[in-house]
Amino acid sequence: MSEASSTPSYTRNDRTTPTRSKERAAWDKAAVHAILDAGYLCHLGFVRDGAPVVLPTLYARVGDRLYVHGSTGSRPLRGARDEQGLPVCVTVTHLDGLVLAKSAFHHSVNYRSVVAHGTAYQVTDPEELRSALDAIVEQVVPGRSADCRPGNAKELAATAVIRLELDQVSAKTRTGGVNDEEEDLDLPYWAGVLPVAPAYGNPLPSPHTAVELPGYLKELTC
Amino acid sequence: MSEASSTPSYTRNDRTTPTRSKERAAWDKAAVHAILDAGYLCHLGFVRDGAPVVLPTLYARVGDRLYVHGSTGSRPLRGARDEQGLPVCVTVTHLDGLVLAKSAFHHSVNYRSVVAHGTAYQVTDPEELRSALDAIVEQVVPGRSADCRPGNAKELAATAVIRLELDQVSAKTRTGGVNDEEEDLDLPYWAGVLPVAPAYGNPLPSPHTAVELPGYLKELTC
Repeated sequence: MSEASSTPSYTRNDRTTPTRSKERAAWDKAAVHAILDAGYLCHLGFVRDGAPVVLPTLYARVGDRLYVHGSTGSRPLRGARDEQGLPVCVTVTHLDGLVLAKSAFHHSVNYRSVVAHGTAYQVTDPEELRSALDAIVEQVVPGRSADCRPGNAKELAATAVIRLELDQVSAKTRTGGVNDEEEDLDLPYWAGVLPVAPAYGNPLPSPHTAVELPGYLKELTC
Repeated sequence: MSEASSTPSYTRNDRTTPTRSKERAAWDKAAVHAILDAGYLCHLGFVRDGAPVVLPTLYARVGDRLYVHGSTGSRPLRGARDEQGLPVCVTVTHLDGLVLAKSAFHHSVNYRSVVAHGTAYQVTDPEELRSALDAIVEQVVPGRSADCRPGNAKELAATAVIRLELDQVSAKTRTGGVNDEEEDLDLPYWAGVLPVAPAYGNPLPSPHTAVELPGYLKELTC
């Protein structure tokens, strides 16, 4: 084995290996972290009464750990509060482009996604909870957590965050252009990629804002 | 009951009622369909070996039915192939804005989401499969399914789509501005909403494209 193979990597096993398009999968931490760090919206999956539930919420990555905000529903947190924790799947997806092929069959999308499996636990330590909430605010808008009033004890008590150690994790990515069949290449259709990405619009200040737009927000909107 | 209450609505029960922020929930079909029709990327949740799995994929709404593309992994489709079907949760989320409050606690996001619970079945009828795939292409880029080569029998056989009847469905939405505490209003922080939406970039034609950009793609990028 070469030295390169010692690159830190998450666990590669049946659970973290996609059954389709395996060549698009990756387990190295750098690839996984880059995708997680590029976003802040995740979809949190858990099982309730034997059936799957998927809810959108916010997260932050801190090292090899995800903190996931529980405000979308207290249901998942009931399980995470217990000692045995709550089995979850946290998925983060960035859509990067529409791949429009000459044939309907080869239409696709470019994307980067991470799927993290594991058992989540509710954060109960007040200091960990405070830093987890700061991390979630920072993940959404870097620079923001130091530019607002910090949470007080009552607010922290009213907030739920779950912790997931990153271990059973994989990334999946599609990049590049169209993969058309050779015999379709001359068909008279437009083919190619339409890039797509989230874009921020003009900030809408509240009536109680008397200060200039801070630099960290200008950066997002320029 | 007034006549307005006869508005078609999905089933409102414990499963489709969020435990938090119930005032943001809706069950009427018009609200649910508007959110579904505004997107094409969903997160499909199912249970494997007792644990949740959440995968991103594409969908289309046709009436009171969702068609979900199975290409992100054949695993969920193994269950959906059987007569008893596969319990799933399909969630669609649009992020509309970052809500930046004077206090860390009141930071939030504006969003529209739909959560659909039910049992999914694999589409096996060739005609239904063909129209479901057309619907998925149309959901992503309206006008596209008629402007590419249709799938042939071999391609259809290699494609998996699952069908979910919409019934146990709810929408959840946050709109508007910041909800700060009265005593925080004069704090010297910028507060307000930063709108966010997906934006398409300049189309990148494949080397084999000899035609002009069609009107339905110009519309997306203007």
